[in-house]
Parts: sequence; C-alpha cells; structure tokens
Amino acid sequence: MKKYTEIKDISNLQETIKDAISLKNNPFEFEDLGKHKTLVMLFFNASLRTRLSTEKAAKNLGMEVMILNVNDAWNLEFEDGTIMNANTSEHIKEAAQVISQYADVIAIRAFPSLTDKLKDESEFVMNSFVKYASVPIVNMESATAHPLQALADAITITELSKKAKPKVVLSWAPHPKALPQAVANSFVEMMQNMDVNLTITHPKGYELSKAITKNTPINHNQEDALKDADFVYVKNWSSYNDYGKVLSQDESWMMTKTKLGNAKFMHCLPVRRNVVVEDAVLDGEQSVVIQQANNRTFAAQIVLKQVLEKL
Amino acid sequence: MKKYTEIKDISNLQETIKDAISLKNNPFEFEDLGKHKTLVMLFFNASLRTRLSTEKAAKNLGMEVMILNVNDAWNLEFEDGTIMNANTSEHIKEAAQVISQYADVIAIRAFPSLTDKLKDESEFVMNSFVKYASVPIVNMESATAHPLQALADAITITELSKKAKPKVVLSWAPHPKALPQAVANSFVEMMQNMDVNLTITHPKGYELSKAITKNTPINHNQEDALKDADFVYVKNWSSYNDYGKVLSQDESWMMTKTKLGNAKFMHCLPVRRNVVVEDAVLDGEQSVVIQQANNRTFAAQIVLKQVLEKL
Amino acid sequence: MKKYTEIKDISNLQETIKDAISLKNNPFEFEDLGKHKTLVMLFFNASLRTRLSTEKAAKNLGMEVMILNVNDAWNLEFEDGTIMNANTSEHIKEAAQVISQYADVIAIRAFPSLTDKLKDESEFVMNSFVKYASVPIVNMESATAHPLQALADAITITELSKKAKPKVVLSWAPHPKALPQAVANSFVEMMQNMDVNLTITHPKGYELSKAITKNTPINHNQEDALKDADFVYVKNWSSYNDYGKVLSQDESWMMTKTKLGNAKFMHCLPVRRNVVVEDAVLDGEQSVVIQQANNRTFAAQIVLKQVLEKL
Repeated sequence: MKKYTEIKDISNLQETIKDAISLKNNPFEFEDLGKHKTLVMLFFNASLRTRLSTEKAAKNLGMEVMILNVNDAWNLEFEDGTIMNANTSEHIKEAAQVISQYADVIAIRAFPSLTDKLKDESEFVMNSFVKYASVPIVNMESATAHPLQALADAITITELSKKAKPKVVLSWAPHPKALPQAVANSFVEMMQNMDVNLTITHPKGYELSKAITKNTPINHNQEDALKDADFVYVKNWSSYNDYGKVLSQDESWMMTKTKLGNAKFMHCLPVRRNVVVEDAVLDGEQSVVIQQANNRTFAAQIVLKQVLEKL
Repeated sequence: MKKYTEIKDISNLQETIKDAISLKNNPFEFEDLGKHKTLVMLFFNASLRTRLSTEKAAKNLGMEVMILNVNDAWNLEFEDGTIMNANTSEHIKEAAQVISQYADVIAIRAFPSLTDKLKDESEFVMNSFVKYASVPIVNMESATAHPLQALADAITITELSKKAKPKVVLSWAPHPKALPQAVANSFVEMMQNMDVNLTITHPKGYELSKAITKNTPINHNQEDALKDADFVYVKNWSSYNDYGKVLSQDESWMMTKTKLGNAKFMHCLPVRRNVVVEDAVLDGEQSVVIQQANNRTFAAQIVLKQVLEKL
Repeated sequence: MKKYTEIKDISNLQETIKDAISLKNNPFEFEDLGKHKTLVMLFFNASLRTRLSTEKAAKNLGMEVMILNVNDAWNLEFEDGTIMNANTSEHIKEAAQVISQYADVIAIRAFPSLTDKLKDESEFVMNSFVKYASVPIVNMESATAHPLQALADAITITELSKKAKPKVVLSWAPHPKALPQAVANSFVEMMQNMDVNLTITHPKGYELSKAITKNTPINHNQEDALKDADFVYVKNWSSYNDYGKVLSQDESWMMTKTKLGNAKFMHCLPVRRNVVVEDAVLDGEQSVVIQQANNRTFAAQIVLKQVLEKL
C-alpha cells in the first residue's frame, strides 16, 4: 500500500480484513517491522479515538511516534503563488517536504470547513501532503473521508456477521451541530466493496454526494428501511446539497431499541446519548460500538503494516 | 494492587515504601515488566511534576505511554440519562470503555470545581472511570485526593527520619488563589498510616473534612503546634466548610526559618516563594522539597509495578 | 560537551560537522548511547522543525523523550526575592532542580520579548536553567541565539561547498511581523568560526549587535553585497538598535532568482513566499532549504551525542 487516503487504496479488502483480525489476536507479531521507522501524526483537529488507536497501532509495530498539533505551531498556506504577508507562516510545499525528512509515514487529520464545498471536496490538505511529501500519507479523517474508520467498521461487520449477505442500513440521526459527511461517505464506499446489502435512510435534503452513493438504494422512510436489518449504522451528517447546513433536528429520527429490531447497532463515536441514539440501545447487548472502537487499532495497524512493507 | 485512587488501596505500606526506595537505587530493574503494556495518561488539568514523574516511572518499567489532554478533544458527560444536546460530546461510559481497549492502565488528573462540594466529594470523574473502565485506574490528583504525592511524602519521611516516631506537622499557609484540599487530605490519611506523631495547624475556618482528620489533633496556634517538629509540611488549601472560599491571606502564617526550628521543610510544589514560605527556608539545608519531587517518580513507579503485577 | 546554549560551546567545529555528516549516513549507529537516558524538551514557544528534528535525533540515539509545553502548565518566576502573589506559580529555582531529576538532558525553547532589550540579552530563561539545573541544557532557540540552526547551516554549507573559502552573504529580507535576531546572530557567529568569506547586507537601521558582528563587513547595498556569492542566507530580523521595531518592509529587499545569481539559497524556515523570497527561488534547484531542515536532525543528534558522552 503506497498511501491510505481513500477506500480504493486498499487493493485486496478481504485479505486486509482477515489480516487485521489476525493482528488483533497477536498484536506484537510484527513488532520488528517498524524498527527505526517513525510515524509523524499531524492534527489540524482534535481527536481521541483516532489519536490513541493510531498511536497504539504504530507502537505495536515497533514504530516511533511523534505527534504535532499543527495549529499550536502556525497556519499553513495551501494556495500557489500567494504573497504570504498575512496569517500564514509556512507553505505546504516546504512543510510537507521538511516533515517527510523526519518521518517514514505521515498521518493527517484535517476536517472540512463545511462552508466552502468546492475547497472541501478538493481535499486540499490531504492532497497537498500527497503531492509534496516524499513519504506515504495516511488519512486520519479528512474533509470528505474517514477510511480508517470505515476499515474498522468492515472488520467489525466481518467479525459479527452470521449470514452470507447481511442487510446493512446507514441511518441518519439528528445532532445539534453541523457535522461532516466524511464518516458516512467512507462507510458507504466501504460497504459497496463488501458482500452486503446496503440501504441508506435519511430525511429529504440529506442526500450524500451522488459520486459516493452511486446506485445504492436510498429510502426516506426510516421504518421501512430498517426492516430485517442485520447491522444499523447510525450517524449524523450535515446537508451536502445545502452545504454544511443543519436542515432538521427531527427527534423522530433518533435510533431506539424498538426501531433497531434484532440488528446490531453501530456508531463511530463520539455519540450524543438520547439525541442520536437512546440509552437503551447503547447500554444493551446489540450495541457493538465498543468493539468497533477497538478495531480502530487493528485497522490502523494493518494499514501501517502494508505501508511499511512497501517502503 | 488493583487500582490506586486512594491511600487505602495500598495493602502493605511499609513494604511498598521499602520497595520504592529500592527502585530508586535501581530504577531499571523491572524494565521488562511493562513490555507491551501501555499507560494512557488523561489530563483534565495542567501538570508538570505529576506528568513528567509518572511518564518517567512508566518508561522505567518499559511501558509505552500515551498522553491526552482531554480538554483539547471535547467535554465528557458524566450524568446518567442526560439528553446530550448541549456542550458534552461523549459520555464517560463510552469514553472509559473505549480508552480501556487502548490502555493497560489509565492514569487520570481531574481537579475539583471548588464550587459544588457534593459533586466534588462524589469524585465523579475518578469513580466513573473506576466504574466503567476495564483496566486499573491511577489517581494523578483528583477532586479530594493526591495519593501519589502522599506516597512520595511517605517515602521522603522514611528516608530522612532519624527517630522512631517523628513529630510531623501539617501547617496551613496563605495563598492568593483558592486551592483544593486534595494534597492535605491525602497527606493526613497517609500519616495516619505511618508511625508518626501528626498534628495539624491552621486558622479557624480551615478545618479539613472530619471524615479525613478523624482524631488527629488540630491546633490553631501555629507556634505551639510547630514546637519540636521533625517534619513540617506546609500547604495552602481553601476552606472546606465555607467550601472553596479564601477566608484568610494572613501573612503571619507564612513559614519562616525561625518558625521552622530544626525541622525538615516539606511542600508538594509548585510553591509561591515569600507567600507560602520565605526564601530562606527554600534556599536552606532543611528544605527537602527537591528530594520529595524526585520521589514522585518512585512513588508512581512502585504503584505501576504493583498494578502491572496484578494484571 | 557540557551544554549547548551558544556557538562557543562547540570545542572542535570541523570534527563536529564531520561527525554529524557521518551520523546522517548511519543515524542509528549510536542507538545504545542514549539507553536509559531521558531528554525533556521544554517549549515556552511553538515549534515544528525544532520539535520534530530534536525529538527524532534523541530517539535515533535511543533516548526517551518527554515533551512539555510550559505555558500549558503555569508561569514560571525568574526574579530573585519576589513575593509571588501574582501571576507566577513556581520559581525557576524549584522548576529547574525538579525537572533535572526527571531528565538527563533538558532542551529549551524560549523566544525574546522584543520589548525589553536588557532582559532579552540577559538570556534569563536559558541562563536560569543553566544555573539551577543539574543536567546539561540544550538551546532550541533562545532570546538571542539559535545555535542548533546555525550548526545545521554549517553542516549544509560544508556538504555543498565546492571551493576552499566560499563567499557567504547574510541578506536581510522584509517581513510583516517583528522577528527575533536569534537566527541571524547565531549564523554570523558560526560563519566567523568557519573558513568562509562572510558579508552581511541589510537596510540602514537593521545593524545586528556589534558584540556579534565584530569586524564582519556590512554592506547596505544588497546588489553589491551579493556579487559572486556562493551561499546567500536570507532572513528577516527586527531592528536591534530601535529594539524590536519593524523599520522597513521594503519589497525591493526580497530575494529573487535574478539577484541570487549562481548562489545556493538558504533559509531556516518557516519562510513567507513572495515576501521574503520569490517562488522561483524556492522552487528552483539552487534552493537548499529542505536539505538545511534535514540537517537539523543531525545537528541535534551530534550535540546530544557529545552531551551524552560527557554525562
């Protein structure tokens, strides 16, 4: 693997998932692979799970880890040809080349503005690092994608699935703040590569990008969509069409134990209780969110392993 | 040791102190014990000594250390049943379970509000982690206790004591800010378990919780209390009864070389010079504050060692 | 080496540079030297390159690294005899002695005020640590000096120089903010110790301290100064005489490809494009800024190596 910034960077998904599950049983098996190799983790935004699980994954492989909150240093310039006499102190061209010399792999988290759709969709932070860095880039959630989360989700579904082609439903939920589409996007793309039956349900106006959903069925009737589901992935996102807007906080879209039926409940966390999902679901036996979070380590570890093997 | 959130988690104090002093002479003796084990340090509040000494202790034992300033990420919810549509993004139930999967031990620092006595005394942060985490919890100073500091203090007194039952005085001192009772509480509880003669002195109104002091003598006359002391532990705390209030900044309670007599001077640091204690004491040979701070490493190390041995 | 806070702490520059270049070819050769040794990095100011390169250097030598942003903890007091009843919580005397017990080497970054010249020139942060710490101090940029940068610069010039006594020009450049003289000072002092022909060029009013420049030629005509240069080091600094002031933002002082001639372009980074230097220079083959930044690792590593050898 030469980088992991998007789902399609995985060449063999089934084998990757199998290898991740194997790492989970023996996390230190490849602890010599990362010897004398350094992961630099760059955070443009806050993180708990991604930070800890990715750091843990790297250390399981024997890597050194250096963590930098970029905003604690200074603002980077991403535009070409700018006269940098205002708020930016360093151009991405220099920053990416320089950091590449201290790192064998660079992992980056950079959220979208949710105000400038074109700029967000250009993935200028992630893609500028891909362009100017001389080492592999790993996406720890970008403007439009969260591929490490999606890989952890795929691992979790593989571990738990009891049938050949499980029904998986991605269900929108209300939230007081405008959130990115990144998790939903990557989950949809990942499921499209799995042997599952995927349905998306959300209120009208919450359509994800057509470039992502393609011909995945969308159902605006949540109850109907959830019928006979094996896995229900709940997530809020802000509007893609009316970009970054909160169009609805309709409480009737909150996930409940009744609606869930016999399905497993999935969420990437953090989750707002009794807004996105009721306590009864999270505290019940059908919730697999803790297992999902644990799989973040092994998703990151299998990606770093494949990246290290290509260095 | 299954956790170390309060003094009474130590089962054999004398042996623990002896082992800590032995670690000080040979800090890397157990460097294989922590192999493949991770300490996650969670800071809800700033730290210098506790941060560095605990990180050092873990590394001396061969552990990996991951440090997270929780407030840099987001606010945690600690109440049950809340509709989380306001300022909190993640419930402690999820956070504690998730972090447990990335950690073999979790160490936590979380100061009191000093405004809500009942809530502070409930130790809701520390106790919620104890309740929901699946790995041992170590207290790096909580609302009402600082047991790692108290253990370092006990080690220091043991190293320096020249008599069978030394006289130890805890003396309140003035301070411009309202400070927690945590250090004083844990010091009192620790001394109650040591073979020492403990007296507490403070202005009226500064009584610590009766549940802590029990039948330890309290003397409002500082000069009288200090007579023939072998160790004088100076510390400010805000009022417990008039909760969190600064009732006095009476400069006459500042510790001086004259008052100190022949006693050793102790303080947990940081200390405000010429407010809590005069320069002549800190710069003199009777001050043992630097040795105390050094013992923070070995207090943390013996605790982590005992925790690792029970995993 | 007992410390590295100023250029003159290097006893044998030629050999040090040679050894640094050798480390670059074999960075893990001395990975046992730092075993059981801890570098504590204290940041009073933000850092990207210095942080990552110094951390990397220490880890290449097998050291443990602990990083503390001092301002996240509390303000330190540096004055003697103060009544500490205001904004400072801990005196440098305690802080330096305490941190020394957790560290084998302490590295410090502390920028100048640029308002109080006497205080800045006293180097009170760096010198207080030198005075009170019991372990070696390494300067990661102080009020008036950046000796690790200067050593990286010397390594770079040595690697690239094709003639016996190359002409090196330090050329002032415009910048919207008031910047320290530290980089320029240390570069001048370092070059004075190298077998190079050094000239300084800047607008009138931007004279560096006479104590630094000594008899190094200063030319206020940039074009004339740059003639036949082999290396052009471009850097902004604020006025030393009219202390900390921005006297000019004259765009005609920006470095251009035309002005550069056949010289190599050097800058410590971060650099503001099209303010300090035009894109054509940075994107061209004469720019060696990325190589300079890479040499930061080996400058730090040779310094730490020499410090460790003297412990």
